[in-house]
Amino acid sequence: MLGELITVGDEILSGRVVNTNAAHIARNLGMAGYQLRWITIVGDREEDIVASLGTAMTRAAFVLVTGGLGPTTDDRTSFAAAKALGRTLHRDPVSWRILVSYLETRKMTMTPEIAKMADLPAGAQRIDLTRPRAGFFIGDVEQPLFFLPGVPEEMTDMLEDFVLPTLRARLPVSARVESRLLRTFGLQESEIGRRLSGLEEQYPSLRLGYLPRYPENHLTLTVRAATPKAAHVLLDEITDEMSRRLGQRFIYGEGEHTLEMVVGRLLNERGETLALAESCTGGLIAHLVTNVPGSSAYLDRSLVTYSDLAKTDLIQVPAATISRYGAVSAETTEAMMRGLVAGGRATMALAVTGYAGPEGGTPAAPLGTVFLAIFYRGKERVKGFRFRGSRWEIKTLAAYTALDWLRRAMIEEAFFVRGAHPLP
Amino acid sequence: MLGELITVGDEILSGRVVNTNAAHIARNLGMAGYQLRWITIVGDREEDIVASLGTAMTRAAFVLVTGGLGPTTDDRTSFAAAKALGRTLHRDPVSWRILVSYLETRKMTMTPEIAKMADLPAGAQRIDLTRPRAGFFIGDVEQPLFFLPGVPEEMTDMLEDFVLPTLRARLPVSARVESRLLRTFGLQESEIGRRLSGLEEQYPSLRLGYLPRYPENHLTLTVRAATPKAAHVLLDEITDEMSRRLGQRFIYGEGEHTLEMVVGRLLNERGETLALAESCTGGLIAHLVTNVPGSSAYLDRSLVTYSDLAKTDLIQVPAATISRYGAVSAETTEAMMRGLVAGGRATMALAVTGYAGPEGGTPAAPLGTVFLAIFYRGKERVKGFRFRGSRWEIKTLAAYTALDWLRRAMIEEAFFVRGAHPLP
Repeated sequence: MLGELITVGDEILSGRVVNTNAAHIARNLGMAGYQLRWITIVGDREEDIVASLGTAMTRAAFVLVTGGLGPTTDDRTSFAAAKALGRTLHRDPVSWRILVSYLETRKMTMTPEIAKMADLPAGAQRIDLTRPRAGFFIGDVEQPLFFLPGVPEEMTDMLEDFVLPTLRARLPVSARVESRLLRTFGLQESEIGRRLSGLEEQYPSLRLGYLPRYPENHLTLTVRAATPKAAHVLLDEITDEMSRRLGQRFIYGEGEHTLEMVVGRLLNERGETLALAESCTGGLIAHLVTNVPGSSAYLDRSLVTYSDLAKTDLIQVPAATISRYGAVSAETTEAMMRGLVAGGRATMALAVTGYAGPEGGTPAAPLGTVFLAIFYRGKERVKGFRFRGSRWEIKTLAAYTALDWLRRAMIEEAFFVRGAHPLP
Repeated sequence: MLGELITVGDEILSGRVVNTNAAHIARNLGMAGYQLRWITIVGDREEDIVASLGTAMTRAAFVLVTGGLGPTTDDRTSFAAAKALGRTLHRDPVSWRILVSYLETRKMTMTPEIAKMADLPAGAQRIDLTRPRAGFFIGDVEQPLFFLPGVPEEMTDMLEDFVLPTLRARLPVSARVESRLLRTFGLQESEIGRRLSGLEEQYPSLRLGYLPRYPENHLTLTVRAATPKAAHVLLDEITDEMSRRLGQRFIYGEGEHTLEMVVGRLLNERGETLALAESCTGGLIAHLVTNVPGSSAYLDRSLVTYSDLAKTDLIQVPAATISRYGAVSAETTEAMMRGLVAGGRATMALAVTGYAGPEGGTPAAPLGTVFLAIFYRGKERVKGFRFRGSRWEIKTLAAYTALDWLRRAMIEEAFFVRGAHPLP
C-alpha cells in the first residue's frame, strides 16, 4: 500500500517553513499500515502541480495533496486537480453555503478570490461539511485522491477523521505492519552496522533503519506479519537478537524514552538523590536531567565550577591538587566528586572535567581529554577519556557519557569492579 | 536558475525525522540567488533514487542530493548515481586514504561496509579532502550534480564551502543578490509582522523571510541590485528602517552570532566575570554560555540550586525567606542573587527561579511564573514574568530572557532605571 504525498507551496520550497506536515502524515499513515514511497514538493505554479499529480497517479496506490486551497491568487491546487484529471471545475453547493454563512457572520463581502474556494473538480466530494475548511476527495478514480489544506490543525483533523477511515475502506491492509525504535549509546554507527550485518537476511520481513542522533544511534525495526500479535512476537525476538549482537549495555531504551528519562526513572524508583559537579559540560548534564518533568524529586544540585576558584570555594577541591595535577585530571575530578559527597546529602554524585576546545589542553591532558568520577552507595569509579570532535561534540559526548554512567552505576553489576584511575 | 533537491532516506519518508535539511538548503540557495523548483523525497530503495535522479536531470539546472552515503547496507546513493549516469563505481584513492587513516587512529578494522564509502561513480570528485565526510560532485555533465551527506552539520559545511561557490562559478546569477539575517528576541512573530507591514512595498527588491527559532524570531532580508556594493547599501538602509520600526532593543545581532555569543563578547570586552544561580532553567543558561569558545574567561560558576537545601547551603538564602515567600518569589530570587554576589568575586550575577511545569505552582506563583534578579556594577533589578507553554518552552524562554538581561544590562542606559520588584 504505497502512496505519494504532494506538498504544494512556495513557503516550503523556499525553506521559509519546515515541512512538518509531511512528517506528521507519513508517521500516521505508517502506524495504520500505509507507507509513503514518494514525497514531492512543488511551489504554487499550476503546471508543476499538474505534472506532479500526473506522475503520482501513474505510480502510487493513493495520493495525498496538501496546500494551495486558500483564497489568494497563488492558490492553484483545485485548478491543477481539474486539469490533471481532464475535468471541469464546478461550484460546489455545500462549499458555497458554508462560505456565504462564514462571511455573513463576519460582515465580510464575497470576492472572486473567496468564491473560488467553492469551486471543485467535477466528481469531487467536500470533506468538512460544516466548517469553512477547504479540502476535498476524488474517489471515482482507480487511486483515491485526497486534497487537504496546508494549515496543520485542519490537515491533522482531516487525516484522522476522513483520510485514514477512507483508506481502510478502500485499500484494506492485509498484513500487519508494526515498528519499534531502539535507542543505543556507546557504539558508532559503522560498528553497529558490522555487528548487525546479515540481520535482515536472518529476518526477511524486517526493515532496519539507522537514525544517528549524535551522540546516540537509534535503530528502527519494521516488520510485517499476519496479525498484530505475531508482529509483536517477532519484534521481541529481533530485539533480543540485537541485544545479544550489540551487547546489552548499549541498548538503553525504546521509543520516546530518552537517556535522561531512563536515568530519572531509575533514580526515582530507587529513591536516590543526585549531585553533579560540571566543568567542561558547563551545565549540559543538569539541563538534560531537568528536561524531565518531576526531576526536582531527585536532582539536588549541579555546580558548574568553571573557574578554579569555584572548585575550591564550593566543593573544597584543594588548590594544591589543582596546581599539582591540573584542573583536568583524575585527581581533581575525584576531589570534586568527594567534595560533593562531603558537602551534601545526595546518594549519588558525579563530577566531570575536560578540555572541550577549540583551544586549551596540556601535554598530559590534550584537547578532548575528559575525566568522570562517580560515587554511588559507597562505591567509586574514576576514568579518563579521549574524545574527538568540535567543542559542541566533545561537550555533548561528555554529558551523555556521564548520563550513561549514572544509568549503568545503578543497574550494571560489574560497573564498579573495573580498575580505578585508568588514564586515557 | 531553478534546481532540484532530492532527499534520500526512509527516516524522512516515514516521518521519523523532519526534513530540516531541505529547508536549510532552500533558504541558503535562495539567499545566493538560486531557487529550488522541486524537492523530491525518496526512501533507501536504489530504484527510486535512480528514477528521481533521472527525472531531475531532465528538468533542473542543477541537482542536489542528500543522504544515503553512509556505511550501512541501506546507503545506496553512490550506486544509484552510477546507475543513473550509466557509469561504473571505482575506488577513489583520496577517500580510501582518509578512511584508512580514520580507522587506524581508532584502531578499527576495515570492513566491506566501510570500504564502500570510498567507491564513487567514475568522474566524481570528492568534496571534503581531509576529513572522513562522505560527499561528492559530478561536474562533467550539463547540470552539476552534488551529493551531500544527510548529517546536518556536514551537509551545512559542504553547502557553504563547496556547493554555493561551485554554483556561482558554473551558473553565475546576473543581478547581484545579497542577504542578511537579523536575529530578534522579545517580540512575537505576529507583532513583528504588524510592525513591518508594507516594508516590501516600500523596498520593491526586498524579500523578507520569517524564521521562527523559538524563543527567537529571525528575519532574512534578500535584495537584488546592480552591484554588491549597491546591495549592501540597500541592506543597511533596510536594517535601519527595521530597527526603527521594531525597536532597537529587540534586534540583538546579525548572521551567525547567537545571543550567547553577543553576551560573551560584551563580557569579554568589559572584563566582566559572571556568576549564575539557576533554578527552573536547570543549567540551561550555563550550557548556552559555555557553548561559546573562550567562555572560561568570563564564566566563574553557575549553581543549579534545584533543591531548597542547595539554595540555603550554597548561596545562603535564608530558610525563612523560602518558607515565607516561597521558592519561586521575587524575595528568594533576590536573595539568591545577593548570595552569589557575597560569595564570589564575579562582577555580574544573575539568579532565576520559576515553575516550568507540567505540574507545580502556587496560587501566588502559578505554573509559568519566572523571576529574574540581576546585579551589575552596584545596580540591581528584579522582575517577575508569566510565561505560557510546555515545560521545554518555559525553561527555554526563561533562559533566553536571562541572557537578554545580561546583554541589556551592559548596553542599555535605562535598563536599571525601571521599578524594582514588579510582581507578574
